Amino acid sequence: MINEERLWNSLMTMAEIGATAGGGVGRLALTDLDRQARDLFRQWCEQAGCSIRIDRLGNIFARRAGTDPDAAPVMTGSHLDSQPLGGKFDGAYGVLAGLEVIRALNDEDIKTHAPIDVAVWTDEEGVRFGGGCLASAAFAGLIESETALGTTDADGLSMGDELVRIEYAGDEPVGGIPVAAFFEAHIEQGPVLEAEGIAIGAVLGAQGQRNFEVTVTGDEGHAGTLPMNRRRDAYLGAARMADALNAVAFRFDPVPVVTIGHVRVTPNSRNTIPGTVVFSIDSRHPDDGVLSQVKDAMRAECERVAGESNVEMSFKQISHSPPVVFDGGCVDAVRQAADRLDLASRDIHSGAGHDACNLARCTPTGMIFVPCRDGISHNEKESATPEDLAAGAAVLLEIILERAGRV
Amino acid sequence: MINEERLWNSLMTMAEIGATAGGGVGRLALTDLDRQARDLFRQWCEQAGCSIRIDRLGNIFARRAGTDPDAAPVMTGSHLDSQPLGGKFDGAYGVLAGLEVIRALNDEDIKTHAPIDVAVWTDEEGVRFGGGCLASAAFAGLIESETALGTTDADGLSMGDELVRIEYAGDEPVGGIPVAAFFEAHIEQGPVLEAEGIAIGAVLGAQGQRNFEVTVTGDEGHAGTLPMNRRRDAYLGAARMADALNAVAFRFDPVPVVTIGHVRVTPNSRNTIPGTVVFSIDSRHPDDGVLSQVKDAMRAECERVAGESNVEMSFKQISHSPPVVFDGGCVDAVRQAADRLDLASRDIHSGAGHDACNLARCTPTGMIFVPCRDGISHNEKESATPEDLAAGAAVLLEIILERAGRV
Repeated sequence: MINEERLWNSLMTMAEIGATAGGGVGRLALTDLDRQARDLFRQWCEQAGCSIRIDRLGNIFARRAGTDPDAAPVMTGSHLDSQPLGGKFDGAYGVLAGLEVIRALNDEDIKTHAPIDVAVWTDEEGVRFGGGCLASAAFAGLIESETALGTTDADGLSMGDELVRIEYAGDEPVGGIPVAAFFEAHIEQGPVLEAEGIAIGAVLGAQGQRNFEVTVTGDEGHAGTLPMNRRRDAYLGAARMADALNAVAFRFDPVPVVTIGHVRVTPNSRNTIPGTVVFSIDSRHPDDGVLSQVKDAMRAECERVAGESNVEMSFKQISHSPPVVFDGGCVDAVRQAADRLDLASRDIHSGAGHDACNLARCTPTGMIFVPCRDGISHNEKESATPEDLAAGAAVLLEIILERAGRV
Repeated sequence: MINEERLWNSLMTMAEIGATAGGGVGRLALTDLDRQARDLFRQWCEQAGCSIRIDRLGNIFARRAGTDPDAAPVMTGSHLDSQPLGGKFDGAYGVLAGLEVIRALNDEDIKTHAPIDVAVWTDEEGVRFGGGCLASAAFAGLIESETALGTTDADGLSMGDELVRIEYAGDEPVGGIPVAAFFEAHIEQGPVLEAEGIAIGAVLGAQGQRNFEVTVTGDEGHAGTLPMNRRRDAYLGAARMADALNAVAFRFDPVPVVTIGHVRVTPNSRNTIPGTVVFSIDSRHPDDGVLSQVKDAMRAECERVAGESNVEMSFKQISHSPPVVFDGGCVDAVRQAADRLDLASRDIHSGAGHDACNLARCTPTGMIFVPCRDGISHNEKESATPEDLAAGAAVLLEIILERAGRV
């Protein structure tokens, strides 16, 4: 029932919005490009007969009505924002697979008992406003909506103001409504399914994640006049910490991932010794106890390097997401749907966080992974095949029909 | 004759333009703040009876006429732009010491044979347009004016357009006029004079300088999903290079200065492994042969680290200023003026580059250094005493009177 070509064409059309020279997508949350992507999604959903609701955090819900107006919706979806130099599939696939499910049901004129909602969650990536998945977290009641609305980007613009600017500050309250189940289709963003030639990953849950912010403070000085042995170079200290933090990861088995992705050097002037460096650490592991040990080891290494480099250091945990375990029934639903469709599947853990990890806190939730080329994601080269993407959408359709109840 | 309080008050008033919370000055070249500083300088000079000329690069020349309209001017001056988090004295002192000389001559109604020009050179710091002292280099005929006008800042704005915007794109041709001599007063920006309790540094010249740009290229990837042993992390490579480059400096005696001041991480997103890092290297030493060896050693270290870190690297020299030796007569003039004023002096090398280093290529040039606290510069904490600053201005007045010829 899934139309592979239609799904692929929708993905390629969506990828034109914010297309980068390197063949990827740069569509930061709540920019004009994000607005264009949202507008296109709405237009497609309205053409497919859906009604649209938008909540105060800009989360969009496109509903295909069921025969029972009182039934809680079966929900699917993902996000349309991307990394600065991201790919065509991260997020967009989950949204457009949901749309393809609705289009396929329309093709066959199939009715369901419960309504089907396709959700677009605001700012999943967290690149612009500094904390990923805040809008789905608020939907699930994990944080206050006001907290998300008040977060600001590097230019001091708030999520709330930017939602108003792009006209996606909706009227609906955030969350607090019953959802029968949530399923998110996504590329794996890792190498396992492709390497094993398996079409479908039944996602058991997501690894835990802790984020830190390290501030290294030295003294600014003139690059030409301050002798090397009198310097307190914040960047030299921060650079040595980067090497030490990488080494920390390899002390553990299985090896956690430890990433310094964001670095801000001040004053960042060619001929001035840096006085301050602030950098992020993103650490993830399936076992939160290990993550806690990693944290202690990283802090100790930063302290050691700071002492040896004659700089000061502050080490602050800024977020902590314990590992997530998805609902057993939802994981089974993915396995069984793949079986019925003669698709090979395997259980898998998600390395990344997803909006589904938040939804899992308020409703039975599952995820469907499909292979991506070389495990590459958050990269313009991110790629997946039309066939694999259609297979994932077919599993999603199978599950939604089951959960929403074919009439 | 120098009015210590007037000079100090002028410095403090100027420092209010772009004053930072930390007690310093942030007044990048050709910003609205730079315009305000230039306007204030012009106003003060006009009140002191000077005529103003502005060349196509925005260099300002405030002239106190001499009795001989055909005599080449004796020139002094420095710059009014600053580092992003700079101090009150770097540059501004040389400009306002020149103004104080004119005010002092006016007080006593002293006439000179040759005219006296106080110059404000555009964008000495090179923070915004990426190469310091370009406007004085063009004045001295070392580069084309069009080259300077065409340089762009991080937002793609050109020096030429920004000069027009702040209304400092003058009509006068750049350079090509005879200058009898150039003297620049400046804080030492190093610790020597203060440590030895000496009021005046007679500057022999400036050390050589080579600037490089290193680009490290890896692969962007998802911070949560790409295993540590499959990564090509451009920031990890760049960080290891920073440590290795610092170690290179200590192989030489005397130790050159090697500084990584500017670092740009792409995409600079918390949850993406950096794909590209571009960083600057500023290296300086009194011996250009040593600098050449330092360059080779630095390139070799970057290549070694790139290989070990599984990233690619390109290493590019972007500027090369050989050591500068000031005119022996001008250096003598500084020594002798200090002697006549009963001020202790010593010969000294400049660690920093200055507009005077360019002027030295087209006219006899000298510099007068005065102590600054703890040798700190390019820092909000930069400080100097009213007494030391007045002593430097007194030496400048003495030299200018001698060279311009008291009538």
